[in-house]
Amino acid sequence: MDDVGQKDEPEQSGFSARAARIQDVAKLADVSTATVSRALATPERVSPEARARVLEAIAKTGYVPNPAARTLRSQKTYMVLVVLPDLANTFFSKILRGIEETLFEAGYGMIISDLDGSPEKEAHFAAFTAAGRVDGAILLNGHLFGQSRDGEGSPARLSIPLVALCEAIPNADIPQIEIDNRAAASRMTQHLAALGHKRIAYVSGPAGNILERERFQGYMGGLESAGLPFDPALVIPGDYTIEAGVRAGQSLVGRTTRPTAVFCTSDEMAIGLMRTVFSAGLKVPDDISVAGFDDIEFAAVAEPSLTTIHQPRRELGQAAASALIDLLQGRPSPKRIRLETDLVIRDSVVPLR
Amino acid sequence: MDDVGQKDEPEQSGFSARAARIQDVAKLADVSTATVSRALATPERVSPEARARVLEAIAKTGYVPNPAARTLRSQKTYMVLVVLPDLANTFFSKILRGIEETLFEAGYGMIISDLDGSPEKEAHFAAFTAAGRVDGAILLNGHLFGQSRDGEGSPARLSIPLVALCEAIPNADIPQIEIDNRAAASRMTQHLAALGHKRIAYVSGPAGNILERERFQGYMGGLESAGLPFDPALVIPGDYTIEAGVRAGQSLVGRTTRPTAVFCTSDEMAIGLMRTVFSAGLKVPDDISVAGFDDIEFAAVAEPSLTTIHQPRRELGQAAASALIDLLQGRPSPKRIRLETDLVIRDSVVPLR
Repeated sequence: MDDVGQKDEPEQSGFSARAARIQDVAKLADVSTATVSRALATPERVSPEARARVLEAIAKTGYVPNPAARTLRSQKTYMVLVVLPDLANTFFSKILRGIEETLFEAGYGMIISDLDGSPEKEAHFAAFTAAGRVDGAILLNGHLFGQSRDGEGSPARLSIPLVALCEAIPNADIPQIEIDNRAAASRMTQHLAALGHKRIAYVSGPAGNILERERFQGYMGGLESAGLPFDPALVIPGDYTIEAGVRAGQSLVGRTTRPTAVFCTSDEMAIGLMRTVFSAGLKVPDDISVAGFDDIEFAAVAEPSLTTIHQPRRELGQAAASALIDLLQGRPSPKRIRLETDLVIRDSVVPLR
Repeated sequence: MDDVGQKDEPEQSGFSARAARIQDVAKLADVSTATVSRALATPERVSPEARARVLEAIAKTGYVPNPAARTLRSQKTYMVLVVLPDLANTFFSKILRGIEETLFEAGYGMIISDLDGSPEKEAHFAAFTAAGRVDGAILLNGHLFGQSRDGEGSPARLSIPLVALCEAIPNADIPQIEIDNRAAASRMTQHLAALGHKRIAYVSGPAGNILERERFQGYMGGLESAGLPFDPALVIPGDYTIEAGVRAGQSLVGRTTRPTAVFCTSDEMAIGLMRTVFSAGLKVPDDISVAGFDDIEFAAVAEPSLTTIHQPRRELGQAAASALIDLLQGRPSPKRIRLETDLVIRDSVVPLR
């Protein structure tokens, strides 16, 4: 091990220079040595409180349990990989919270991989996973390692449990935790139509994304239910980012026949789009109604506050982590869990005058 | 290893059921077996392109390099722990991007730990680190494991390199990467004063936080430079979150003698505070000027767009990762790096009329 950085300084740590033993840890944590062993080998069998005391004592004493020996013995790492398409999107923050708190309660740590559209990073984490460095993985990226979003290509050969979260993975025989994106998008479209809007624009997610496919079908279905025709000129490409919303706004404000309402399929796009609308001297909602999707923290405090679809993000994360823990501990797990969304009515959408 | 989840299906993967060997990986990646070994044992000595091919081939073939044996041999994990105080804060997204891209280029993966104010989680990750599960750590939480923010208590005995980022750690002999928080806060305060504002409120960060201490000193210094008296009634407690901004706004709008400008020490608080100001029927900036700190993505698209201090977040992440890589590879690292900030003038601050 490298010791170029922080030095062990006995006068700081309060421990002598001899290597710490398991007895030192047990004494400091006020537990038996068997509990120390158990906290390391099968943490789910030790209470969170005792585990925290043991872990703190391990760190204080500098006791090194020899991870390699431990791995050879238990074949478990008690770490879970969470694969994100884009860590920079605020949408994921509460989901990660939900995942982490549930994993932690069961004795597992969380490793985050942010793919950021990079095949190199994906290969890196696929190998990391294949090499047994984690016990399981939660995939929010819509495909298995080695496959495209459409399920083409050979998936990486992983013998660990996997769970798909938010972005369903077609044909993968793993638990899938999601919302009903189609129903939610249909509901918002019908809400706008019921307020009298007939020209309802749609700002999309990334092409090929399953969330986008489902939400677009919901938009189409919502128009149909409301008896409104579909106009392809009202579909504006986006990718869920603030910048995409700014660009979508630019394509809208210059039109001679503007839509009277815009359904953005993420709150970040809705907030970016409103910025462009304001900069063009138009008002939201007086000149144009704007709706979002997700209900991120910024939706409620935006000006005007954003009418949107509330996703139970923390609960989604908790449900995915619970499903994975079931598999890790040899219990059956439900194959598909769909959590409820809500239509949140705020100030950015008004009836057509 | 657990195989409850995804099954290996030879008809899908295109490989036979026998265990993959290093030769299979080398053939598929079109490199020598020596390159495969090197990509695993000393990834920094292999080009990113070749490494990606090898990693992809490992995942495709299902080759298991035996991580335990590898760890015993090389004593390296090629993983770095990043410790955050609050993953939910949008401020960290671009910092993590900067860290991850720099680590990845050097062959290291990133593990994120979100402390969320939990001593249990901190103990967990301290033990994880002490057990040699990572090669180094980047600390954004303002203290060493086992210590308070004031440097009290015994630090955990870690023999791996550490780097402090954003929140400096007093008395720790490790590289510290930061901005000059005091100078930036003083600059914003003087900017507000130069526009004629005399009652400038200050919404603080969490008590005891070193960023808060430095920014508060900057606010005090800025007032003094401008010849303005300090009024403790104008200091409103916060914690950098949207909710704290909403609460700070509530304490302001009801006052008979309101400040004419508010300096919020995070953009999230500024956006939350503006929400409360609008809800009370007041206008920003007409009735009250509002300034932020950080320049998160939402600052430029807020309504009104937010005057703030720009932090070079991506570069901060890159600099911290570079400093850590220097230490990991046995090179000297600078002890303190301070990156420049900018005053970004937008629409939420105007001269006092």
